[in-house]
Amino acid sequence: MDMRRLIGQNFARIRQARGLTQEQVAERSGFSQQYISGLERGHRNPTVVTLFELAQALGASPLDLLQQDPNR
Amino acid sequence: MDMRRLIGQNFARIRQARGLTQEQVAERSGFSQQYISGLERGHRNPTVVTLFELAQALGASPLDLLQQDPNR
Repeated sequence: MDMRRLIGQNFARIRQARGLTQEQVAERSGFSQQYISGLERGHRNPTVVTLFELAQALGASPLDLLQQDPNR
Repeated sequence: MDMRRLIGQNFARIRQARGLTQEQVAERSGFSQQYISGLERGHRNPTVVTLFELAQALGASPLDLLQQDPNR
């Protein structure tokens, strides 16, 4: 699976599991809601530093965003 | 630890464990030896797609490059 889509799917899954909206995560992370929306649709190619900041906004680890989903 | 330094240290450790030189990894990955050298010194901020390509050149997973070293 393409890394951008993998990260987008993991990010959306974790965000929803934590009951957070894209707006809330945008506010926490300092990124725009549009950026978050594009990330979740697999349209962004964040740097590792950005990946770390996005993971922190979710209260997750960058590793969580790169996990391959065993079901797929 | 700063993500750039973490990735650089992991990359160098895995490369050496596999008995590869920076030149060999540069050739496999399509990145320059200077880029690889800068990455290992923590001076690069690669995108996740680049991280994936670099990990592939080592025969490793991107997750291996983000692992926190428990000893440090």
